Amino acid sequence: MSSPTSPAHREQPGRIMHGEMAEQPAVLRRLLDRGAPRIREVAAAIAARRPRFVLLTARGTSDNAALYAKYLLEIRLGMPCGLTSMSTTTAYGARPDLRDVLVITVSQSGGSPDLVDSTRAARSAGAITLAVTNNADSPLAAVSEHHIDILAGPEKALPATKTYTASLLALYLFVEGLRDGDVSAAGALPELADRILARQDEVRALAARYRFAERMVITSRGYGYPTAKEAALKLMETSYIPALSYSGADLLHGPLAMVDNISPVIAVVTDGRGGQALQPVLDRLRGRGADLFVVGPKPQVDAASAGFVLPVEGVPEELQPVLEILPLQLLAYEVTIARGQDPDAPRALAKVTETR
Amino acid sequence: MSSPTSPAHREQPGRIMHGEMAEQPAVLRRLLDRGAPRIREVAAAIAARRPRFVLLTARGTSDNAALYAKYLLEIRLGMPCGLTSMSTTTAYGARPDLRDVLVITVSQSGGSPDLVDSTRAARSAGAITLAVTNNADSPLAAVSEHHIDILAGPEKALPATKTYTASLLALYLFVEGLRDGDVSAAGALPELADRILARQDEVRALAARYRFAERMVITSRGYGYPTAKEAALKLMETSYIPALSYSGADLLHGPLAMVDNISPVIAVVTDGRGGQALQPVLDRLRGRGADLFVVGPKPQVDAASAGFVLPVEGVPEELQPVLEILPLQLLAYEVTIARGQDPDAPRALAKVTETR
Repeated sequence: MSSPTSPAHREQPGRIMHGEMAEQPAVLRRLLDRGAPRIREVAAAIAARRPRFVLLTARGTSDNAALYAKYLLEIRLGMPCGLTSMSTTTAYGARPDLRDVLVITVSQSGGSPDLVDSTRAARSAGAITLAVTNNADSPLAAVSEHHIDILAGPEKALPATKTYTASLLALYLFVEGLRDGDVSAAGALPELADRILARQDEVRALAARYRFAERMVITSRGYGYPTAKEAALKLMETSYIPALSYSGADLLHGPLAMVDNISPVIAVVTDGRGGQALQPVLDRLRGRGADLFVVGPKPQVDAASAGFVLPVEGVPEELQPVLEILPLQLLAYEVTIARGQDPDAPRALAKVTETR
Repeated sequence: MSSPTSPAHREQPGRIMHGEMAEQPAVLRRLLDRGAPRIREVAAAIAARRPRFVLLTARGTSDNAALYAKYLLEIRLGMPCGLTSMSTTTAYGARPDLRDVLVITVSQSGGSPDLVDSTRAARSAGAITLAVTNNADSPLAAVSEHHIDILAGPEKALPATKTYTASLLALYLFVEGLRDGDVSAAGALPELADRILARQDEVRALAARYRFAERMVITSRGYGYPTAKEAALKLMETSYIPALSYSGADLLHGPLAMVDNISPVIAVVTDGRGGQALQPVLDRLRGRGADLFVVGPKPQVDAASAGFVLPVEGVPEELQPVLEILPLQLLAYEVTIARGQDPDAPRALAKVTETR
């Protein structure tokens, strides 16, 4: 006997995305408990090869996770890094000399043919290759010398959420593993993630201000910059609001003109040096009367038009991005619901067009 | 005796930007005639040091020129590259091991303190440093071991135009110099640039379609991708239209949903492998009924909703970006005029706000 409520339940907008966002504390816990020892082994094996340069390859949400890893590698390890321009290999057949180079490919599915091809090419060009995926049986894991499983469980929503935070934590554990660092501070993340996700009503109230926004600007500096980019992608994928992300420094170099009285600004303020470096940008935005929403420490939120105070007790700056994105995932979700759209069906318009 | 027309002339919207756009053929010619021999010497000196990796540092328009250089270095020289995340040095004090690394800093003014600081830090960390600027007397040129002058003459408009194309050509001459390559094909650029800029009326007619656009998406692949990013920046700086740039591959991974019936798309189609790799994206966009504007070869323009046929006779794909951006600079200019704004005063709104 089928329940009369089940079809309605199935059609509840955003049910899939919401369920996956809610899984995040459990995913982080699983990665810490079951994934960390294996990640440490991979890191030790790669550290023994003494790579001198790192190239990161990814697309979309995984590209934002790769950018986070770039900050970690440069700041924590002093290792020069680059993000791959994939077409140089796949379209132009470039075959760079990759001895001493660690190539890290981040992909939720591990199935994209171009990522598989470029990783295979990197390996044959002498690189140490590492795949970070949510699928240990994927073609990408198979062609890479090393593999890290982010253990997030199947992800069905089109907007990736839990695989993003799991990728960040896996990359943090890996990079700290390269330097044999202490990762105990990460133990606080699952509980803090729980507390943040429990504040969905607060985010829903805040989302109302963006219901009629025609565009948004999202900014940050340092470790928070990948969060700004991922938040922009999430907002666009779900609500279609054009969300432009800039590092605070770049924002001052031009696009600032677009902000006044036109675009609301979201600032991701990490509690640490990145947040400090963003301070002149925040002052400038406030001085121009910009509508400023802050995700970060309480004093910064109090000085803004609105915001979300992020609990980060005991969490070092380099780990805060795992938490920072959570209220912004919720915001993308709630703004989309408020606009009468379905966060689970961001391609609805496309489907209509394709039936022509 | 002052001419009665001079104040009106001074206030003609976009006069400064227009004048600088028009200088581009002469700037390219000067760089080929007077700049190229010196660039060749710098390249030979650096090639003798045998760098293994390249890091590129820049902001805004110069960052798009740096991205172009990244494609050249990876494809033409097989040299792994990265774009610097500057805050890792300036905010976090990272001191990476930069032996065997060439650090190229691109900056029109050569005056940004953070670029100067990060270049100085790179040099003390063992990097070979090269500044590419429009000011040989700048602090950046002074702290760098090597310097290339792009010889564009003073740039006064806020939206950079002639320093962008001059930076591209200077970087092309440098990278080809590293491999002792033949640069004679660049000799065709000034004449072709002249022909393109003479077609301003054609662009003005095309600009009408974007007068009321609320957002735009700009896409490309390979060598044309920096053009897409620079065109988006130019449109935003002048007209405030939120212009989102994506590589064709990334566009298919998510933001495509935003395109249908909502955002017009500009595609930069280089005549070569990048354009070929973009073909499936163009087919998909056409299949969805997107409004598609193409800058590229005639067959691609004919298959689109509108476009600008780019003359590139005898110009290899890697040099086409120097020409591709020209109709898009004109488009940004004309769209801004059509919207009743002044391309020379993109911060007008800001000025009003600051007087509060």
